[in-house]
Amino acid sequence: MPKDLILRPIGNIHTPYTSLKDAPHQGRLSEEICKIEVFPEFLPGLKDIEKFTHLVVLYWMHLADRRKLTAIPPHNSRDHGVFSTRSPNRPNPIAMDVVQLLNVRGNWLEVCGMDALNGSILLDIKPYSAGIDSISQDSYVLK
Amino acid sequence: MPKDLILRPIGNIHTPYTSLKDAPHQGRLSEEICKIEVFPEFLPGLKDIEKFTHLVVLYWMHLADRRKLTAIPPHNSRDHGVFSTRSPNRPNPIAMDVVQLLNVRGNWLEVCGMDALNGSILLDIKPYSAGIDSISQDSYVLK
Repeated sequence: MPKDLILRPIGNIHTPYTSLKDAPHQGRLSEEICKIEVFPEFLPGLKDIEKFTHLVVLYWMHLADRRKLTAIPPHNSRDHGVFSTRSPNRPNPIAMDVVQLLNVRGNWLEVCGMDALNGSILLDIKPYSAGIDSISQDSYVLK
Repeated sequence: MPKDLILRPIGNIHTPYTSLKDAPHQGRLSEEICKIEVFPEFLPGLKDIEKFTHLVVLYWMHLADRRKLTAIPPHNSRDHGVFSTRSPNRPNPIAMDVVQLLNVRGNWLEVCGMDALNGSILLDIKPYSAGIDSISQDSYVLK
């Protein structure tokens, strides 16, 4: 097994949020339009992307503290394991946002529903599929 | 901006699937029980994980071809951009599975709904939240 795994930045994420204070707790609560710039060398990977209404965007939270294994969630007052929270501070700070795709202009996507900080590094885009990605019951029972 | 980003393996994924032929097209269609082994050094990160019914699991698809920018999806007969498909072959082969959490035994989790190949490398676990992760309408309109 490889000891470590190297990611390739495939683009940049442009949002109005420059610090954690600015960003919404969860992007789904926001109507801000954010822009995803895919580096031109990856443009062939976007073929047909405009046919989807929603995407899963994976990006690197470049300001995260990777040493943290516990976090205090916003709605709570005690420490939980980071894998029981959506804290950006975790061993591999990969964020997952489900976003609405508004527009495609060449290698730029306009989306709604992100909470990424400006300058976050794009890692992957996948089409969202309710059949495989959606659980309607809420799993969020943390007390 | 960093040129490349190094992931830390945080565990191993144990499944009955040893080749792409064995694996279900999507894990949600499977009732097989799979096991997630979290390396002991990350055990504090699992605190309170048992309180959730569903998790998002991110893992590294260790057999993927990272050079591919197009793919032919199972239900189709022509090439699409990889970001318009769920193909394992993509520049950063990070898979996202929404799974049901069945059991927690120390640093081992038993889950249902994975399509990972045996030996896939665990990168992250997040609690699933319908409020932020679920879109009930299906975005999957690729023709």
